[in-house]
Amino acid sequence: MNDVTGQAPDATAAEGGAGGGRRGRGGGGASARRAARTQSGSGPKLAYIRRALPEYEVLDEEGLALIEANADIVLQEIGIEFRDDAEALAMWKEAGADVSGERVRFPKGLCRELLKSAPRIFTQHARNSENSVEIGGKATVFAPVYGPPFVRDLDGVRRYATIEDFRNIVKLAYMAPSIHHSGGTVCEPVDIPVNKRHLDMVHAHMTLSDKPFMGSVTAPERAADTVEMCRILFGSDFVDQNTVLINLINANSPMTFDGTMLGALKVYARANQACIVTPFILAGAMSPVTVAGTLTQVLAEVLAGAAFTQLCRPGAPVVFGTFASSISMQSGAPTFGTPEPALVSYGAAQLARRLGLPFRTGGSLCASKVPDAQAAYESANTLNSTVLAGTNFVLHAAGWLEGGLAACYEKFVMDCDQLGMMQAMARGVDLSENGQAMSAIREVGPGSHYLGCQHTQDNFQTAFYRSSIADNNSFEQWSAEGALRAENRANQLCRRWLDSYEAPALEPGIAEGLSDFVARRKESEPDAFA
Amino acid sequence: MNDVTGQAPDATAAEGGAGGGRRGRGGGGASARRAARTQSGSGPKLAYIRRALPEYEVLDEEGLALIEANADIVLQEIGIEFRDDAEALAMWKEAGADVSGERVRFPKGLCRELLKSAPRIFTQHARNSENSVEIGGKATVFAPVYGPPFVRDLDGVRRYATIEDFRNIVKLAYMAPSIHHSGGTVCEPVDIPVNKRHLDMVHAHMTLSDKPFMGSVTAPERAADTVEMCRILFGSDFVDQNTVLINLINANSPMTFDGTMLGALKVYARANQACIVTPFILAGAMSPVTVAGTLTQVLAEVLAGAAFTQLCRPGAPVVFGTFASSISMQSGAPTFGTPEPALVSYGAAQLARRLGLPFRTGGSLCASKVPDAQAAYESANTLNSTVLAGTNFVLHAAGWLEGGLAACYEKFVMDCDQLGMMQAMARGVDLSENGQAMSAIREVGPGSHYLGCQHTQDNFQTAFYRSSIADNNSFEQWSAEGALRAENRANQLCRRWLDSYEAPALEPGIAEGLSDFVARRKESEPDAFA
Repeated sequence: MNDVTGQAPDATAAEGGAGGGRRGRGGGGASARRAARTQSGSGPKLAYIRRALPEYEVLDEEGLALIEANADIVLQEIGIEFRDDAEALAMWKEAGADVSGERVRFPKGLCRELLKSAPRIFTQHARNSENSVEIGGKATVFAPVYGPPFVRDLDGVRRYATIEDFRNIVKLAYMAPSIHHSGGTVCEPVDIPVNKRHLDMVHAHMTLSDKPFMGSVTAPERAADTVEMCRILFGSDFVDQNTVLINLINANSPMTFDGTMLGALKVYARANQACIVTPFILAGAMSPVTVAGTLTQVLAEVLAGAAFTQLCRPGAPVVFGTFASSISMQSGAPTFGTPEPALVSYGAAQLARRLGLPFRTGGSLCASKVPDAQAAYESANTLNSTVLAGTNFVLHAAGWLEGGLAACYEKFVMDCDQLGMMQAMARGVDLSENGQAMSAIREVGPGSHYLGCQHTQDNFQTAFYRSSIADNNSFEQWSAEGALRAENRANQLCRRWLDSYEAPALEPGIAEGLSDFVARRKESEPDAFA
Repeated sequence: MNDVTGQAPDATAAEGGAGGGRRGRGGGGASARRAARTQSGSGPKLAYIRRALPEYEVLDEEGLALIEANADIVLQEIGIEFRDDAEALAMWKEAGADVSGERVRFPKGLCRELLKSAPRIFTQHARNSENSVEIGGKATVFAPVYGPPFVRDLDGVRRYATIEDFRNIVKLAYMAPSIHHSGGTVCEPVDIPVNKRHLDMVHAHMTLSDKPFMGSVTAPERAADTVEMCRILFGSDFVDQNTVLINLINANSPMTFDGTMLGALKVYARANQACIVTPFILAGAMSPVTVAGTLTQVLAEVLAGAAFTQLCRPGAPVVFGTFASSISMQSGAPTFGTPEPALVSYGAAQLARRLGLPFRTGGSLCASKVPDAQAAYESANTLNSTVLAGTNFVLHAAGWLEGGLAACYEKFVMDCDQLGMMQAMARGVDLSENGQAMSAIREVGPGSHYLGCQHTQDNFQTAFYRSSIADNNSFEQWSAEGALRAENRANQLCRRWLDSYEAPALEPGIAEGLSDFVARRKESEPDAFA
């Protein structure tokens, strides 16, 4: 990949005990940039997570089998609608499904049989090969918030998002040590015509970051543009033979896929690019009010949508997606960080493992309008369940506010701090001789302290996760330093990150090719704003 | 118990799917008070948790055996100091230990052999038998913050705590639906002489609440006072035959128990009252900087301290306690909500289960000085690990701020909301026919919604946890309602709880007996303030 882009890798994978990530060649400006990042408080970049911790499981064999049997009944008897896509219906008929109008009913076992060609784990390549990620197995990848039309900016103003915000969030994700992926629609740049946004967004991911990213899914031709741009960035042969995009294909729950999503899915699957087939669920509205009922519907929808990727191209990478939340039964408003969606995430992760597909859920979700205690409680509850579930791809891992309507700069860096904690947690318990620390216990003995002992001196720099946001000082010192709240400190840190941002190198010929493509495509049709 | 106190039970155990808690007889003023509580937003009281969820385990058999073997080495070769207590040393010598000065070394297996008489699970009785709790097994009990000398009050002022604050927190814990226990030193009433505080504190627990509570441990004679007061409240025979107190006995880590704690331990264990033997660990200072090393030391300390309770009285209830945190290696300040203490909690819970003792850890710990996002992230991280570890007794479950130096009114009710979520989570996945919800999926079908279907109507009132703090409304509505932060809403709710507080009934003769005892003991010695 370095051969393709001609750039120097800009950071060394610094993951500790659990290892992971390929190491690239050292490069000229790398150490200088690394030093700048460390000074700015973002710290060394970390490779994606290889979990040493076991997965937490909330369902036993009996429960899992029950839900699988119920999902089979849904597929056979109720079926799934594939709307506004005659080709999809014809493909399903050809594959042996019962197609009636837009409703597709599946003979028992058909979807599972088709999914046997889907990989359990795959690599999504980044233009900097050090940042390529594995999706599946024991890997966990954190990606930023996706989709918000608003931002809460560094002046505390909540307003429509612009392309400048988009670029800022890509820069922050590039600098954040525990963000392993540049994401996709990190916010909606509403100042750009709706039919041309995807070009500027993909261009930003490609030029301002060298982490892997997501493609446009809002129309088949925008998906095709994304693939074209990847051919410029990576080379056509490389794109044909490798997965360089992962793309969010939402089901229109309950039990429906619409023409737009199917169109994008077909483009990407046929190009051997990855699809995350995700039932977008606010339980109580798009699924039953119970955890088991929601899991049944989610499994049925994923089975149908993921199997369809294999009809498009056997072997195309596909991820079992879940977006789990619920609504307030009093007001209808979406709620986050509550117990029921956590149980859905844990259960869905188990179902995905049994199906042999990588799993996506969770993130740092919250309903709060500000980065306050509500936002943090809800985000931490979601993130804990996401990581312990063994999630492979974590969208919305940082920056999500207000039920996903707003991307928040301050919360972005606060969430990144939490992601760093989860990354340390995922390393599990070190049982080496150094980890056992018997020498320290012997040296110190009863009634003394460990502050100066040899073992502490040998380990103090890496012993504990060091938060970039938390203030652990005394009340008096904290008061003397301005009595700042967490979001005030996050604001300062976020400004430092943006001030010290430096773009990763990109071969001039490729940069020009991308700019030309974007300009040409923008000129080819009039602006549209809806 | 109702016979003893002559009072009507004031609430019905309302735990859902997982059951749990004994049901008492209905009482006169119960429904009125319940209604008042519901209006004030505290909701119906919940019985202690019976976890349907499995425990999350971070260590495998090999890792656990390694730590156990290392702890045995600590006990045999390094030993534990029992300071300022000649009687304790004599008892250990008599039991077969090697006593040298104040250092006790234990033949392999001695502590485990002694602990065979300790119960795996026991009942702590409350004066309202509906509020009695089980400690151990699948039970989880939430108790308030313990120990802070300061409060952050409802005017946002951080100041020394008073007996009025103490009483307020006891009232809040009485009203909070998901607090199952009145706790102990919910704050230090520094306006009361230090040698008489325990009388007013125990009196407050006994009269302002009817939930179970903790005894004084700051001197053997104060422990004896606590037992005496229990005899007045419960009757002497009842106290002799049952456990009505649980008491916090901290080890002076590393590997030391001091005379004060040993004095209180002996009083309580000999009276068949429960001790929580808790190494108080800030890793890096009181234990090695590694998780495995900390677990080794914790296990050794608990084995020695818990075994000593069985020397005092075989069969006395004893809990495996852990207070796990670490320090900043840069400043020495304690940190909370970080990954390493979570791993310690998970691992210690596993060691406790293998030892056959109930387990205490965790709570809603944080280092923040205000109830902001830092406080919430850290508390949620701690609470998630506490609950998923399968902790039986959760001290500091609500109200902890500033590394335990301050009890915070606003955070108390915010934490209670989180405890309610954990209580719902612990019920696990309902796999009944209603839980499976196949009727709803059939009724609704593709492309519709579940808002009005029969299954939703049948379940909407109990379907999802309903937060008392979170604002899930639109940005516009939230703005129109004053753009309140979580702690502002918590402030309002806390004031409503305190305004609507009504004391549980207590037989006048008992109330008089307790007041007389307190007055008599206060007159018996001069005030001391240090």
